[in-house]
This record gives sequence, structure tokens and C-alpha cells, in this order.
Amino acid sequence: MKEHSIARTKPFLRALLGEKEWPPPVWLMRQAGRYLPEYRDVRAKAGGFLDLCYNPELAAEVTLQPIRRYGFDAAILFSDILVVPHALGQTVRFVEGEGPQLPPVRSVSDLAALGGGQADILLPVYEAVRKIRRMLPESCALIGFAGAPWTVATYMVEGGGSRDFQHVKRWAYDDPDGFGQLMDRLVTATTDHLAQQIEAGAEALQIFDSHAGVLPPAEFERWVIAPTERIVTALRAKYPEVPVIGFPRGAGVHYPQYRTRTGVQVVGLDTAVPPRWARQHLGAAQPLQGNLDPIALLVGGRAMTAAVDAICAALGSGPFVFNLGHGIVKETPPENVAALVAHLRGKSAS
Amino acid sequence: MKEHSIARTKPFLRALLGEKEWPPPVWLMRQAGRYLPEYRDVRAKAGGFLDLCYNPELAAEVTLQPIRRYGFDAAILFSDILVVPHALGQTVRFVEGEGPQLPPVRSVSDLAALGGGQADILLPVYEAVRKIRRMLPESCALIGFAGAPWTVATYMVEGGGSRDFQHVKRWAYDDPDGFGQLMDRLVTATTDHLAQQIEAGAEALQIFDSHAGVLPPAEFERWVIAPTERIVTALRAKYPEVPVIGFPRGAGVHYPQYRTRTGVQVVGLDTAVPPRWARQHLGAAQPLQGNLDPIALLVGGRAMTAAVDAICAALGSGPFVFNLGHGIVKETPPENVAALVAHLRGKSAS
Repeated sequence: MKEHSIARTKPFLRALLGEKEWPPPVWLMRQAGRYLPEYRDVRAKAGGFLDLCYNPELAAEVTLQPIRRYGFDAAILFSDILVVPHALGQTVRFVEGEGPQLPPVRSVSDLAALGGGQADILLPVYEAVRKIRRMLPESCALIGFAGAPWTVATYMVEGGGSRDFQHVKRWAYDDPDGFGQLMDRLVTATTDHLAQQIEAGAEALQIFDSHAGVLPPAEFERWVIAPTERIVTALRAKYPEVPVIGFPRGAGVHYPQYRTRTGVQVVGLDTAVPPRWARQHLGAAQPLQGNLDPIALLVGGRAMTAAVDAICAALGSGPFVFNLGHGIVKETPPENVAALVAHLRGKSAS
Repeated sequence: MKEHSIARTKPFLRALLGEKEWPPPVWLMRQAGRYLPEYRDVRAKAGGFLDLCYNPELAAEVTLQPIRRYGFDAAILFSDILVVPHALGQTVRFVEGEGPQLPPVRSVSDLAALGGGQADILLPVYEAVRKIRRMLPESCALIGFAGAPWTVATYMVEGGGSRDFQHVKRWAYDDPDGFGQLMDRLVTATTDHLAQQIEAGAEALQIFDSHAGVLPPAEFERWVIAPTERIVTALRAKYPEVPVIGFPRGAGVHYPQYRTRTGVQVVGLDTAVPPRWARQHLGAAQPLQGNLDPIALLVGGRAMTAAVDAICAALGSGPFVFNLGHGIVKETPPENVAALVAHLRGKSAS
């Protein structure tokens, strides 16, 4: 058995492979993060945010914090989707309270000016994966991840977050061949980054396409579906046993097409997707993950448990991993997360 | 014939009522705005943004500017969705480059503290409608509008724009009865505001629910569909001949249910909705409006005309009004808008 063969003893991995597990396995997007006081302690001593990502000991520590506290069924590597542009040679700065800042890449010559990149800077990330894998409880699986090329490109071209994605769309619409060169580099780098995480011990992968929802249909096809399909196909050829979760946030009516065309084995649902619609249109046997509103977790109490019950009733008829529909927000009381896990584990089968 | 009876001579109104018009009638969301130098001139001399909204002469002037320049098939009153909270007694400030700022209303007692409001401040808005109606070219229709209660509530409760809508969702999830009191006030005030616009000469209405896409399904039903239905039902009882365009931006898979349940006669599609999907799922006879990506208009050229052609091919098989899928962005070259209109009017029937 190869190191990255899938462990059928872990409920999370069984659910990803199509088995119906009850209570549903659970992890939460951004479960290692600022809502946890122990995370803020480590963050304060790490230096910059990227210093934390590139410090195997500290990255492993913050990855494991929510596992110790809540006993989640999966850990997700603590890292950031912008380590890939960083490895491609772009400067990436995280400014407290302002989000990431990058000198924008808006043309083929900007792209050429990045040079060959420096893939070595990611080695500590894989070292963190190895460490985490060794330290995880037996029943807990380890998820590796990357941003999807489209979403990563939005940051690279806009130079940070954006409201209207004016620069990246302008390039993609006006010069699709040139923009395609950036996307090709991202497909290659992302595939490699995910493969290295598998080699280091990741047992499943998630591809975050947080900005998938801002494109018209032809561009959704070209810049969301096609690049993701290339990554999934390449990974599947080499690591057929490692399931990939696709999370095309905001994809709306495109969800079924995204699933079919990209080949992802598991579909992550965002908050806006009605769970009953998803189960109906993606199929009874389709492993689905989602999709509690992070603000329902922030609120807690009966509003939260009622929302949890509705999601479990709609999605739990098939293979299902409980998660949020977007990342946990930093104001979330940690005790609400404990209450969520307790509620899920106390539920009888739907 | 009452003053607000519909003029069957106007192509835009005929399309809203279910007739297939070719070339498709066209107007653009935010067509009166900062991308036009003549708008910026008026804006500079108006004082604050709300001063412009409440100045009938200047509001009429900027409403008419794009009609003169481009000959659109419809004018939309120059105003803002936040005049309704302003009339309800909330302070509203527009800060250049930062968007609107309001002292947040986050509880029933905050709501009570607003007092009875001051509906009189909206009288100049209706005066602007009367002026515009008198000055419009014969074939050009006049659209009145308001924000939908959910979207307006997000601004009232967050105190401005938001990324995660944490405060408004917190109130809505944790205390739906209290939040429902705010929504009740908004339903009443919005219905009245729209009715007054009809009385002053508006020939069609659009209800903007720009933040409809951020809610889980149960809350979409309660805070998007139900309040909109109450407004549409009340208006229809009194003004059955005035069509209402609902624009639930980001509603995704909810679009068909939104149409059926709210009773809006026309559905505005956002950029992310595939036009073929919309035509198929909303019906061959359903008047649809949309949905060019504003960034495709910004880019212009062949990228724009190809996108326009695809939308016309998909939506033009039934009643159809051409528009953007979101508001025009201020960086848009005015000549691209002229090229768009020329391209549309030069098209042969699909």
C-alpha cells in the first residue's frame, strides 16, 4: 500500500468515496484561524502571515489546534492560496486588516517579468504536511488544498481583493490568449503543488474557486471549468485514490455542469445553494459537502441547530460531509463550534 | 385613460408586457452616472449626492443625459435606494470613494428611535419624476425604482456596505420577529414610494435586490421573496397596468421560484445567470431583461459584441429587454455605450 493510498478507516474519507456515514463527518473551512485564541497566540509570535505558512512547526501547530479542541474528522493544512503566485515569483504581502497586496500582473510581459519563479519556497509547506500527518489522531484525515487558477488569477491581476474584478476580466475578455498563458502557468503550478501535498501525506484535496461566481457562462466554462478539469485529470492519472473536492463558490446553476465536466469526485456547496436542489440535481449518490452559513454559526443557539438540521435532512440522504458554505468568520465564539459538533454527533440518522 | 396607463406605443413597455420586439429595447443599469462627463459636471455643482437626488431640476437633467446621448428605450429616475431609509428617519451620508454610511439600526429599540420618519423629504423625487416624464422623447419610457427590503435592510443594519453581512444576518437569524418589524416598515415605505412614483408618471418599476444572493434558502424565502411579494401584490391591486421588473441579483437557482412567488412580471438577470438556462427555466413567454457583464462593456470591441450576440441569441426568442447584468462601472468609455446601442440596433432578428 502506497503512503498516499486512502485509509478506509477514516469516516471523512469514506464519505468522500461515496459511503453514507452517520453522524456526518465534519470539518469547517478556515477552522484553523483567528476565532481561536490559541491561533492568535501563535500568529503573534510567528512574524508575518507568510512566515507562519512557511514555518512547518507553527503551521502544523495551528492546523492541529481545532482538531484537539473539537475532534473534527479532517484537518486542513494551514496555508494560503497565494503561496502559488508567491512561488511563481510574485511579491505577496499580507497587510493586517486590509487583505493581501500584490504588484499586479496584467499582461504577458508582466508575466514574463516574474521570471522562472522559486518553487523551493514551498518546501516548508510540504514539510508541514508531513509533520501534521504524523501527529494526527488515527481517525482524522488530512486535506491538502490550493486555489483554483481563476480565483488565484483574480488576486494576481487585481493585486488583491476586488469588488468588480475589472482588471482580470478586462485581460481575460480582451486578450484571452495572453491571459491563457497566465492560466496555463497556474494550472501547472497548482497541479504540482497539489501533487506534492499528496506525496507528503495529504489524503484528500480541496480546490477553492472562491470567485467562480462572477463570470458569465462562456467565461465560466473557459476559466473555471477547463483549468480545473486539467488539474483534476492530471492528478487522477497519478493518484486515482485521492479524492478531490471542488468548491466553486457562487457557481449557482453551473454546479451540475461543474461536477460533470471537471471530474471532481466531491462537490462543496456554498451558502446560497439550496441543499435540496443540490441533492436533486447532483444525484443521490454524489458526495456533497456543505453548507451552513458561517453567520448561523456565529449566532449559534436554536437558529444554528435548526439550520444544521435542515441541511442534514436535505443532504444526509446520500454521501455527505458537514461543513460551512464559506469560511468561519473571526468573530465566531469558539463555544458555538463546540455546540455545532456536539449537535451533529448527537443526531440520529436522517 | 388614466395618466399612468401604459403606452403601447413604447417598445420597452411592449416588451415588458410580453411582446417580442426587435431590435430589443435597451437601457442600462446606472446609465446616468459617473462614466458620463456631463454627469460629473452636474454632480460637481449639486453639492452632496443626496442634494442631487432631492433637486428635481438636476435629477431630471442627469436622468435625461444618457437618453440624449444614446437614445435608450427607457430612462430610469436618477435617485438612490437609500432615500427610503432616509425618509424613515435614518441619517444617510455618502462619502466620496467610501460608499454610503448610516448609523446602524440593529434592534427594535434602534428602530423605534428613528421616530415616525419624514416622508416629505421624498416629495422632490416625485417632482423629478413629473419633470422627466414631461421631457422624455415620445418613444422613451420612464422607470421608477426602489431597493427591495432585504437589500435596503442590509445597508440600514450594517451601516453601509458589507462583505459578510454579519450584523443584518445576526439580527435576522437570532430575532426574526424583531427584524421582521424593520422589514414590515420597509415593505410599507417601499410600496408607498413606488406608488408615488407611478402617480407622478413612472410607467414601469424595477425592484433592486442587489444582495439577494447572500441568503440560505429558508431566509431567501422569508426575506427576499415574501416582502417582494407583498409589495408587488399591493401595487398590482392598485396599478395592474404597470409592470414590475424584479432584479434579485445573485439569486441563482432561486430565479424561477422568485418569479413565480413574487408575481413580478419581468425578471432581471444578473451577469452570472446563463441566458439559455434562464430562457429555458423561466419560460418562452416570460419577459426577461439582461445581462451583459458590465466589464464586457468596459472592454468594448469584439469581446463585447460577441457577448451581446450570445445574449440576444439566447434571450431574444421571447420577450426581451437588453441590459447589463449589474450597474455600468464608472471607468466605462462612453463611446463603448454608443457602440453597444449601434450594434444592437443593427442586428437582424434572431
